[in-house]
Amino acid sequence: MSAAAGERRTGRRTGRRPGAEDTRARILLAAREAFGERGYEGATIRDVAARAGVDAALVHHYFGTKQQLFIAASEFPVDVAEVVPRLLAGPREGLGERFVRFVVEVWDRPEVRPLLMGIVRSASTDPVAAGMMRRLLAEGPFLALARAIDLPDAQLRATLAGTQLMGLVMARYVIEVPPLATMTPAELATTVGPTIERYLAGDLPCPRPASAAPVR
Amino acid sequence: MSAAAGERRTGRRTGRRPGAEDTRARILLAAREAFGERGYEGATIRDVAARAGVDAALVHHYFGTKQQLFIAASEFPVDVAEVVPRLLAGPREGLGERFVRFVVEVWDRPEVRPLLMGIVRSASTDPVAAGMMRRLLAEGPFLALARAIDLPDAQLRATLAGTQLMGLVMARYVIEVPPLATMTPAELATTVGPTIERYLAGDLPCPRPASAAPVR
Repeated sequence: MSAAAGERRTGRRTGRRPGAEDTRARILLAAREAFGERGYEGATIRDVAARAGVDAALVHHYFGTKQQLFIAASEFPVDVAEVVPRLLAGPREGLGERFVRFVVEVWDRPEVRPLLMGIVRSASTDPVAAGMMRRLLAEGPFLALARAIDLPDAQLRATLAGTQLMGLVMARYVIEVPPLATMTPAELATTVGPTIERYLAGDLPCPRPASAAPVR
Repeated sequence: MSAAAGERRTGRRTGRRPGAEDTRARILLAAREAFGERGYEGATIRDVAARAGVDAALVHHYFGTKQQLFIAASEFPVDVAEVVPRLLAGPREGLGERFVRFVVEVWDRPEVRPLLMGIVRSASTDPVAAGMMRRLLAEGPFLALARAIDLPDAQLRATLAGTQLMGLVMARYVIEVPPLATMTPAELATTVGPTIERYLAGDLPCPRPASAAPVR
């Protein structure tokens, strides 16, 4: 079956002959929606095909297995190499706030949220998605920022920042905890920003055994 | 194989006639293991029954539906009313470190981790588990601590602390990000503790729109 023959909902773009790229993009969008709503385990190729208005065989033709489709659909929608210098360009004070605001605003975009929801939802049960999340936390924009700031323990700093943002994202978008779910990006930036700034650019103290004595 | 299932074969408790309470406890332990490994959607009553060495009908008899079993198995293993005063009893400085260390040490306990893994894994895909996590973040020990400290915005403070600890827990136990996955409770307490302390007991600044301007 050709790409065009696989399309059923072609009426919307009548001014233009739909090509393979259109179909691929439509399948990817449908896959992000499906993984975002149902997680990796719950989503099916059949569901993705139905949302995209194509035959399931066409989804397999373009993307292979469900795992391969998941990886293709999970490509991060932000160019880290381009964002990190812009975040670093302002004054060092406020870097954490700018980063939190940037992250929340990316998540708030309706076309991005399903993709990231899919990764977060799937990361808790699927090893492939967990591996992607591990790389995002350990090697993504967090590490690029920590390396650019050039303090010791860049890996630890990056992953600490990642834990705070992952927890914020889970609370705001997945679990929808008040008041975090309804605060503005600017409000979240001022409350959570200093945490990110300390992790990336502040003092990380040596262990103080006395004050961290176990509670029994 | 679970410890409980092994019991059935080895007869370790031969001096005692197993009663209804033993069976209930064995089923709950098996349920925590099953939900912890497979999440709410992946776990089945049949699997729980097999791990506990009982008939599936007996699981239904004691606990009803899978959802009811999940709720019973997810009862938090820590008495918040007893822990919060102990955390507050020490000097205010170090409260965050003591709390982080306490949380990590609870999670590190082999009999507790499956239960909490089950809640975290399931919270991202199942509404019942998400509701439990929402209550844990919004009404659990975080709010009890924030209320005892008695500063404005106790609800916001509690949920902010919850996001940091939920993200840390996901990174350490579910996604297993280095170096967080292998650090000691004391090391995590000194790095993450100040964040919790600021959220619960520190200054939460008013929005500063200039420094939190969007990155474009």
